[in-house]
Amino acid sequence: MQVPAAVLTHLKKSWDAHLAELQELVRIPSVSADPAYKADVARAAQWLMARLQRAGLENIKLVPTKGNPAVVADWLHAGPKAKTLLVYGHYDVQPAKKADGWKYEPFEARVADGRIWGRGTTDDKGQLYCHLLAAEAWLKTTGKLPVNLKFVFEGEEEIGSLNYGDVLTNTKGALKADLLIVSDSPMHGEGQPALTHTLRGLDYFQVDVTGPKSDLHSGTFGGILWNPNEALVHMLAQLKDPKTGRVLVPGFYDDVVPATKAERARLATVAESDAALKKQTGVDALWGETGWTSYERIGVRPTLEINGIYGGYTGEGAKTVIPAHAHAKVSCRLVADQDPKTIAKLVQKHLTSLAKPGTKVKVTVLSAGSGVRADPDHPLVKAVERALEATWGKKPVLIPEGGSIPPVADMQKRLGVVPILCGFGNRDENMHAPEESFRLSSFEKGREACARIYGELGA
Amino acid sequence: MQVPAAVLTHLKKSWDAHLAELQELVRIPSVSADPAYKADVARAAQWLMARLQRAGLENIKLVPTKGNPAVVADWLHAGPKAKTLLVYGHYDVQPAKKADGWKYEPFEARVADGRIWGRGTTDDKGQLYCHLLAAEAWLKTTGKLPVNLKFVFEGEEEIGSLNYGDVLTNTKGALKADLLIVSDSPMHGEGQPALTHTLRGLDYFQVDVTGPKSDLHSGTFGGILWNPNEALVHMLAQLKDPKTGRVLVPGFYDDVVPATKAERARLATVAESDAALKKQTGVDALWGETGWTSYERIGVRPTLEINGIYGGYTGEGAKTVIPAHAHAKVSCRLVADQDPKTIAKLVQKHLTSLAKPGTKVKVTVLSAGSGVRADPDHPLVKAVERALEATWGKKPVLIPEGGSIPPVADMQKRLGVVPILCGFGNRDENMHAPEESFRLSSFEKGREACARIYGELGA
Repeated sequence: MQVPAAVLTHLKKSWDAHLAELQELVRIPSVSADPAYKADVARAAQWLMARLQRAGLENIKLVPTKGNPAVVADWLHAGPKAKTLLVYGHYDVQPAKKADGWKYEPFEARVADGRIWGRGTTDDKGQLYCHLLAAEAWLKTTGKLPVNLKFVFEGEEEIGSLNYGDVLTNTKGALKADLLIVSDSPMHGEGQPALTHTLRGLDYFQVDVTGPKSDLHSGTFGGILWNPNEALVHMLAQLKDPKTGRVLVPGFYDDVVPATKAERARLATVAESDAALKKQTGVDALWGETGWTSYERIGVRPTLEINGIYGGYTGEGAKTVIPAHAHAKVSCRLVADQDPKTIAKLVQKHLTSLAKPGTKVKVTVLSAGSGVRADPDHPLVKAVERALEATWGKKPVLIPEGGSIPPVADMQKRLGVVPILCGFGNRDENMHAPEESFRLSSFEKGREACARIYGELGA
Repeated sequence: MQVPAAVLTHLKKSWDAHLAELQELVRIPSVSADPAYKADVARAAQWLMARLQRAGLENIKLVPTKGNPAVVADWLHAGPKAKTLLVYGHYDVQPAKKADGWKYEPFEARVADGRIWGRGTTDDKGQLYCHLLAAEAWLKTTGKLPVNLKFVFEGEEEIGSLNYGDVLTNTKGALKADLLIVSDSPMHGEGQPALTHTLRGLDYFQVDVTGPKSDLHSGTFGGILWNPNEALVHMLAQLKDPKTGRVLVPGFYDDVVPATKAERARLATVAESDAALKKQTGVDALWGETGWTSYERIGVRPTLEINGIYGGYTGEGAKTVIPAHAHAKVSCRLVADQDPKTIAKLVQKHLTSLAKPGTKVKVTVLSAGSGVRADPDHPLVKAVERALEATWGKKPVLIPEGGSIPPVADMQKRLGVVPILCGFGNRDENMHAPEESFRLSSFEKGREACARIYGELGA
C-alpha cells in the first residue's frame, strides 16, 4: 500500500514539534548502568507511555522485569488478514559526562550543524521515536494503521538485556508477530539505506587460574612452580593459531554454515575496504582467519577474543611477585549454526584440558547468546526494502553485523518472528562514545521510512 | 681471638635492658613505603644515632639521599694491621596494620611465647641491633674493638634501595672495608646457623603492547586485527619452554656458570625437600627447569617470571572490548656470571622481535641488578663461620638465596668488599607478612654471635 499523502504531509508539518519532543526525551538521562539514574530511567519510560497515549496507541503498559521495566503498546485493529509487526527499541542510554570529550552537555540535546547532539540521540531514542511518530501520523490522518502494530521498548539494552527473558515471559505471547523490526543500527553511509540480516552470537567466559595459596616472593620461589600468570598465558596462547588466525578449540567450526559463493559476492559489493578498516581502528596492518576478507571475518565468520587479562602486580614500577591467581575474560562471536551452549562446553573443555600442574582452572560461562540469520528474500523483508527505496531513492544494501543483540535471537526463537534490522543511524554518530549525535535528515527521513514500511506491509 | 668473658657477661647482664630497647625501636613505625610515616622514619634514624652514640661509636651521621637518609657510624682504632668490617642493615620496615591478620598491634612490640612480635622485629631491626649491642659490649668492657668497624643502616631497603647509590657516592669511599656482613636473612631452621653466599641478580621489565588507536567493540572489529591482549599472550608464551622450563631468550644461558658436582652435592645436604616447598607454597605439584632439583632451581639457576599482566576489561562481569593496549611486568633472576645489562638487552631484543603485525612493543628496563657469589672458603668468611659455630655449637651450613639485595652487589663492586650474609632470622618469622616476630633466643644468641665474629676477625 502506498502511504497516503496526508500521512507524509502530517509528518512534514509537525517537524518542529517532533524535534522539540525528541530533545525533551534526550534530556532525560536514562542511564541504565548507573543506579544514581534510576529515577530518570523511570521518567523516560513514563514519558514514552504518555506520548504513546497521545499518539493513539493502546494497551500501553510497563512490563516488569528483575531490572528496569519495558514499555509496551499496540494497535491491533488492522483486520484478520493484516500482518502483525513488532518494533523493538530501547529507551535506556549509555553513561556520558561532558569531561569525557563532549562539546555540548551530553543531556542538553543541542541542535547544531544539521544534527541533534547528545547521549541516546542515535542510540536509540531518535530511532525508536521515528516509529512512534510514523504510527501517530497514520492514526491522526487516516484513523487507522495498515498493519497490526506492537511496540516493545526495553530499558536495559545498554547493560546487556540480561532480563529481556522476563519481558517475553511476562507478556505471555502478546508480542507475537509476523515480522520483527529493530531500528538500532547504522545505515551504510549517509543516504544509503541498509538492512542488516545477520548478527553474531556471543559466548562470554571468565577464566580463573589459581596456583599457590598466597602471593609468593619471586626470588624465594621463582623457577620452581607454574606461576599462574604464565600458566594462563600458555593456555590462552592455545586458543588461536598465530599463523592462520583459526580458533584452536576442537569442534569450534563443526556447525559453521559456510558462506556461499553468492553470499561472498554480495558481501564484496558492500564490504568496507581494508584501508577504511585500518583508518577506523588506527592499526597499520590487519590480521585474521586465512582465506577470508576482513569484511567476511566480521560478517560471516566466528572468532574469539581475549577481552581482558589480569594477574599479579599491575601498578607503577616493579614488584617481584608470583601471584596466587590470574584471570582472563574471553569471548567468542558465533555465526549460524553454532549453538552457544555447545560452543561454551567446547571452550570450557579445551581450556581446562590446558591446565598446568600445580594450578587449578575454572571457566565460568557469563553469557551464551545465539546469532541471528534472517532471510533477506522473505516477502516481508522485501516489503521493508521497497519502503526504504521509496524513502531514499536508493535500493537498500544488505549488510551483516559483527555484533550481537541477544533479544533479537530470543524473540526469533520464542515468538517465531522473522527478524530484520533496519536502522537510521550512521557509523560516525558515535554510539557509546563522546559526541553522540543523530542527523536531522535521518530523523526526518526515518519517520517517513517507518510510515512507508507500515504501508508496504499493509499491501 | 676468643671473645673475653667480660663481653659475654655484659651481654647477659644487659638482657632486660636490651629487650626493652628493641621494643622501643620496633614501636617507631618507620614504614618507608607510605609518606604518612615520613616523620617516624626520621625518628627511627635519630633513635639509632643516639643509641650508637651511647654505645661508643664515632663519626655518627646521616648520609643524605634522594629519599630517606642512611645512618653511618664507625670505630676505627683497631690499628693498622686490623681488618675492617662493614655491617649493613636497614631501619625501615614494611607496612602493617592489625586488620591484615595480626594478633597484637604490629607496632606494640609485645613479648609473648618466646618471641617479640611486631613489624620489623626480624626484618631488620632485631638483627641490626645485635651488631650494635655486640660492639657496645666490647667497647664498654674492654675499651676497644678487635676490628675496625663501620655501620651503614639504610632507610629504603623495603622500597627497593633505589637510592643506595647515593649512600655510596656521598660517603666517598668511607665505607671501604675488607668484609661486608649483612644480617638480614634467615638461619637454616631454629638453632642451625647459616651463611648465605649467593644472591640472584634481578632484571625487571615493563612490557607495553599498543594496537588500535582506542578500545574497539569486539563485535564490530573482532577477528580482523591483532588484539593487544592476544599479541601479548603469544609473545609471553615464547619466553619459557612449557616442556623443559627453560628460558627461550636466545643467549640467556650463555654466561651462566654451571654448578659444579661439589656444589650440587653440598646443596643437596641443605636442600629443602619438594614436600617442604609444596607445603610452603600450597601447590600440589612443582615444576621448573629440567635437569635440576627445586632447590637448585632457586639457588644456582636463573629464571624468568611474569610478575604482572593487565589489559582490557578487568572488572566484574562482561565487557566486549578489544583493548587499545596491554601490559606485562616481567623479571629475570640471574646467577653468576650473567651480566644484568647484557641479559636486559637480550630480553628486549627477543620480545620486540615477537611483535605482531599492527602492534607496537616497548620493553622498558625498570631495574638491572647483579647477583652476588661470595667465596665460602675466604679466610674472613671462615672466621665468621667459626664464630657462629662457637655460638650455636653447630657448624653453619652454606645456603644460596634466590632473592636479590641490590646494595650487596653494589658494595661488592664499588667498595671491593668480600660479602657474606649472616642472618639470625627464621623462615617462619613472617617477614613482609602479618604476625612478624623474632625469637628471643635468636636475639640473645645473635648478640653473642656478633661479639664472637668481631673477635674472630680480630684474630
